[in-house]
Amino acid sequence: MEQSFVAWAKMRARRLPQVKLGIGDDAAIIATNASDIVVTTDSIMDGVHFRLQEAGPRRVGRKAVSVNLSDLAAMGAQPLAIFLSLCLPRNDAQTLAAEIYEGVCEQSEKFQVALAGGDTNCWDGPLVVHVTAVGKVVDDVIWTRSGAKIGDAVIVTGALGGSLLGKHLDFVPRFDLVEKIRTRVEIHGAMDISDGLSIDLLRMADASGCGAVLDLTQVPITPAAWKMAAGASDQALAHALGDGEDFELILAVPAKEIDKLRGLIGMQNVHVVGEFISRTGLWSRHGSQYRQLPATGYVHQ
Amino acid sequence: MEQSFVAWAKMRARRLPQVKLGIGDDAAIIATNASDIVVTTDSIMDGVHFRLQEAGPRRVGRKAVSVNLSDLAAMGAQPLAIFLSLCLPRNDAQTLAAEIYEGVCEQSEKFQVALAGGDTNCWDGPLVVHVTAVGKVVDDVIWTRSGAKIGDAVIVTGALGGSLLGKHLDFVPRFDLVEKIRTRVEIHGAMDISDGLSIDLLRMADASGCGAVLDLTQVPITPAAWKMAAGASDQALAHALGDGEDFELILAVPAKEIDKLRGLIGMQNVHVVGEFISRTGLWSRHGSQYRQLPATGYVHQ
Repeated sequence: MEQSFVAWAKMRARRLPQVKLGIGDDAAIIATNASDIVVTTDSIMDGVHFRLQEAGPRRVGRKAVSVNLSDLAAMGAQPLAIFLSLCLPRNDAQTLAAEIYEGVCEQSEKFQVALAGGDTNCWDGPLVVHVTAVGKVVDDVIWTRSGAKIGDAVIVTGALGGSLLGKHLDFVPRFDLVEKIRTRVEIHGAMDISDGLSIDLLRMADASGCGAVLDLTQVPITPAAWKMAAGASDQALAHALGDGEDFELILAVPAKEIDKLRGLIGMQNVHVVGEFISRTGLWSRHGSQYRQLPATGYVHQ
Repeated sequence: MEQSFVAWAKMRARRLPQVKLGIGDDAAIIATNASDIVVTTDSIMDGVHFRLQEAGPRRVGRKAVSVNLSDLAAMGAQPLAIFLSLCLPRNDAQTLAAEIYEGVCEQSEKFQVALAGGDTNCWDGPLVVHVTAVGKVVDDVIWTRSGAKIGDAVIVTGALGGSLLGKHLDFVPRFDLVEKIRTRVEIHGAMDISDGLSIDLLRMADASGCGAVLDLTQVPITPAAWKMAAGASDQALAHALGDGEDFELILAVPAKEIDKLRGLIGMQNVHVVGEFISRTGLWSRHGSQYRQLPATGYVHQ
């Protein structure tokens, strides 16, 4: 299948000026205009990150692109190109590949990122969709998860929890916010929430050599999480803290920048849920008391 | 598993100056010193590209890196960084990942390329090892498969065939040659032989808008191909033309450059096996007569 699929894929892929050489050769050449490039890579697998029968191939293609783009957004980078590698079950592989490809192209057009290469193979195993995304650093701004400083506010960019009801397939990488704040707000660190707020925040705090405390009443909860919790508030909070695949950003922002941030991206995208603190570990704040908070969320096996 | 594996992997991975930020964050940052970057991506899968039980995980790790680096070599690029993504069968996944990783690191050290990121997941399917390689363009030299010109010699850089007896796992991407000739020889086009000389040469000719003729008596044949053919010369030639996974380079070189090429990389690495011609398609030459040659080789499903 590969040759005709590649020919079709080449035609189907949008041409963007940053790709000097795209699909069809041994590798792709990406113009960077002298800035550093940012590369991320993630596989999603049938039965692990999606169920093909339920989600459908187009949404799977979109998700594969979005999880990678979300990583670039979390770095404050600007996406340039993506590379797609498919492991396809033999049964009706061509149709499946084409449907996935539609979803991939949809996202790549939405975010003006070039699909610049990849490979396809058939096998007796389940579907694997693998994407590598390449972005560039803009204006020397790069957000790492290790940059949070003690006293920084912990900000999340949207409501959390219940992603299994649909958002884990249909979320939107938050470049809309990134573009507005990259050069205008002092962001010390950032990370996207893939495994769950509590576990990802703890990882961010650990990487930054500090701890974090959450004000649990401030954590924004999605309608989906409320639905899964059947209205029970402790359960809804548990979903928001631990479901993961929210793909909102955690930002470490100095207090003096919060108003500016709200002005640029709107109140609804700026939820101050806690603070980075000197005491290591993850805590919840109850008045002046801190209680250790278990880090719940998806742990990769 | 992922967190402890990542921590270990980060420690295990060699630090190279081109990686500004490597394993452990959402994405990696690669310094390019203002040159364009070259990116390639390939998955290898248990039962398709290797048999885990026979090959062993370390060789599988090496192969996954080498197939990608071979693509960079075929572009004339210089490798900078690789990204590894693993789909691991649940049974003893950690040991398996570590062994694969050893093979990956072995190759990355050999070729001074940084392992700069990736992800790992467990599942109920077979092993998939996915690598993305990023390289850079040096001195504005880039070899494509579409650059061959009518009259160029078809040169292969080594003996072909019988890779299944071992070479498909243990081949060496030909950076040794690339480094010596990149700026010194006029190379019009290049491609690595992954699917078989005949099918890959036809693809190269097609991409270049010309045809190619082979002098079958000049095709260098490996001892492994002779062994698989049990000494029958037509069978040995068939192996050389169609087995694939040789990972030698096909070079399109103007005749006047051949002596210089031999001087730089040695007779044993310069096999003139044919010529790019105006008549499209793939041919074999018998005196002044051309016969159409079937393109044999691995066709991706």
